[in-house]
Amino acid sequence: MTGTGMPIVGMVGGGQLARMTAAAAIGLGATFRVLATSNSESAALVTHDVAIGSHASLPDLSKFAAHCDVITFDHEHVPTEYLEELASAGTLVRPGPAALRYTQDKLAMRTRLEELGVPVPRFAPVSSAADVTEFTQGKWPVVLKAISGGYDGKGVWVVHSAAEAAEVLSHGVALMAEEFVPFRRELAAQVARSACGQGAAYPVVETVQVDGICREVIAPAPGLPADLAIEAQELALRIASSLGVTGLLAVELFETSRGLLVNELAMRPHNSGHWTIDGALTSQFEQHLLGGTDPDIYDRYIHVMAADPGVKVHFYGKEVRPGRKLGHVTVVGRPGDPVDSLRDRARRAASYLRWGIEDGN
Amino acid sequence: MTGTGMPIVGMVGGGQLARMTAAAAIGLGATFRVLATSNSESAALVTHDVAIGSHASLPDLSKFAAHCDVITFDHEHVPTEYLEELASAGTLVRPGPAALRYTQDKLAMRTRLEELGVPVPRFAPVSSAADVTEFTQGKWPVVLKAISGGYDGKGVWVVHSAAEAAEVLSHGVALMAEEFVPFRRELAAQVARSACGQGAAYPVVETVQVDGICREVIAPAPGLPADLAIEAQELALRIASSLGVTGLLAVELFETSRGLLVNELAMRPHNSGHWTIDGALTSQFEQHLLGGTDPDIYDRYIHVMAADPGVKVHFYGKEVRPGRKLGHVTVVGRPGDPVDSLRDRARRAASYLRWGIEDGN
Repeated sequence: MTGTGMPIVGMVGGGQLARMTAAAAIGLGATFRVLATSNSESAALVTHDVAIGSHASLPDLSKFAAHCDVITFDHEHVPTEYLEELASAGTLVRPGPAALRYTQDKLAMRTRLEELGVPVPRFAPVSSAADVTEFTQGKWPVVLKAISGGYDGKGVWVVHSAAEAAEVLSHGVALMAEEFVPFRRELAAQVARSACGQGAAYPVVETVQVDGICREVIAPAPGLPADLAIEAQELALRIASSLGVTGLLAVELFETSRGLLVNELAMRPHNSGHWTIDGALTSQFEQHLLGGTDPDIYDRYIHVMAADPGVKVHFYGKEVRPGRKLGHVTVVGRPGDPVDSLRDRARRAASYLRWGIEDGN
Repeated sequence: MTGTGMPIVGMVGGGQLARMTAAAAIGLGATFRVLATSNSESAALVTHDVAIGSHASLPDLSKFAAHCDVITFDHEHVPTEYLEELASAGTLVRPGPAALRYTQDKLAMRTRLEELGVPVPRFAPVSSAADVTEFTQGKWPVVLKAISGGYDGKGVWVVHSAAEAAEVLSHGVALMAEEFVPFRRELAAQVARSACGQGAAYPVVETVQVDGICREVIAPAPGLPADLAIEAQELALRIASSLGVTGLLAVELFETSRGLLVNELAMRPHNSGHWTIDGALTSQFEQHLLGGTDPDIYDRYIHVMAADPGVKVHFYGKEVRPGRKLGHVTVVGRPGDPVDSLRDRARRAASYLRWGIEDGN
């Protein structure tokens, strides 16, 4: 930990998710490091403390983790066995390997969600064109997915015949087949879960994918019936809890004529949550940083947020000295709110924080 | 400039203003550097590119400026003659030395404002207890101010007698006397001005100082009559324009029974504008970064902002490659706004930005 009592959070991966997390860490007063593959990566350009190395190298990961209080991830490409080795060597890995494996193995994810009673598209592992043909029950097209390593539409094929399936199988990648779902639209439910199990849900959003890439997000999803919105949020909170997710979980869903189906999971900040920087009081990046650490580290925040979730805290990362400005708090009201009550809320929060700091907690 | 066409902005000074500017630069896609006196300064903890050196050393400043497209400031303590040397050596200094000198020399500032017809407290330079006694016209207390180098209430003395004045004069600091203003409250008017002269005003705020330090800010100032608010904003815009300020200008004001009086100027992000991070679409730190550069650098932003000031742009700092995600835009509506029109605004902005990027402008 740093001299200010704030944790050192390390993020493996130097993409734009890590970049936006770096911006969030500044306001939270957390010390932030990234493990990037090069100095020109999006987050490496703006983060104070950049380690250059590979997420696929255990020595690089171990060296990086040695200078962090907790590590978390910008993507899901770190091999599970490395995550387990880091965890057993004493590194705080958030989310933990037991949760993250479900983002790396789509077959395990689908199987586990089905066990939990979560609605998912029909699926089966396949290793031959005959397997695929049997799976279709005569109904083409069918979706083939790489069990591991796909992202942004890569590793997903819609095939219309046994011959097309054979062509995909010839790549030698472990595959699963999935029914082709004629969905109305795609939705995403994002939730944050703390290390001690508290959960919070963002409004459910509509996402528009173009060529497998998220092009547009509308929050909240227009015209989504309240019961479906609640079902999606409850589903996401239940999945987060059942899989032991710490930090952010994004659940990508199909809205279909037979209800909601879970498509993908991401246990990190997600495309579908970028709107929260500008449209929510606490962004997904802040939630991820707050969720990814031990509960005792953020005592002061937790105190203030429990007392008044509408207060925005900004820390300057400074060591405590008498009379020194260490941060500020903001309360934003709406037209017509009494100014006195807004000011009282800000004063109460500042007093909590100052007391915490003065007593050296 | 960087490969993405975004400028390298250097801020002299590593305090919390630079820290919050670093966070703003991340979203704007600007490359940000700070010149800090030590690695433990607030901004040095979170900025990727930190130079260690002194703002009072011309060699340190020149070395720092050589790696920046434009330099700006977290405080007003860089000697004017160094700023002039940097500018004549070709460094883009924003705000320029001709403007900044008014934040470093309170006597010059008061004199210039009086010439401009701006209401200020009665003042005069003093060098003896007799000067002070003559200035008071028999009415104590009177305020003595260090002409240079004061901040946060330091360098300001309220004296009640010639003996007290003599004690302050004995410090050997160049002083001016100022009438003691029995103000109702303190206000601040913050404006941003671009290099080509466009200006924008934030709502006028009420500030509460305790022991010379800004303790509370209420935006907008409660109960401020509309005509006074407009007068304060117009005053600030006029001062920014007359003094040639680029970037942020904060004008600290006294609200008195005889109207508004200008107390202090700051040509940088300011305590009284921290609320804009959470309470305004574009924060004072973003405005300062946008204002501090040549107009042609931010063509894309200017285009989008002119077309729709309600769009929030986030760049990831990545080099352009076909199919690569380079950023995102957000439009936040209010309850009842038609979703289609919000989406159209976001699409239009994204299209402008993409077009600009694709054509390599």
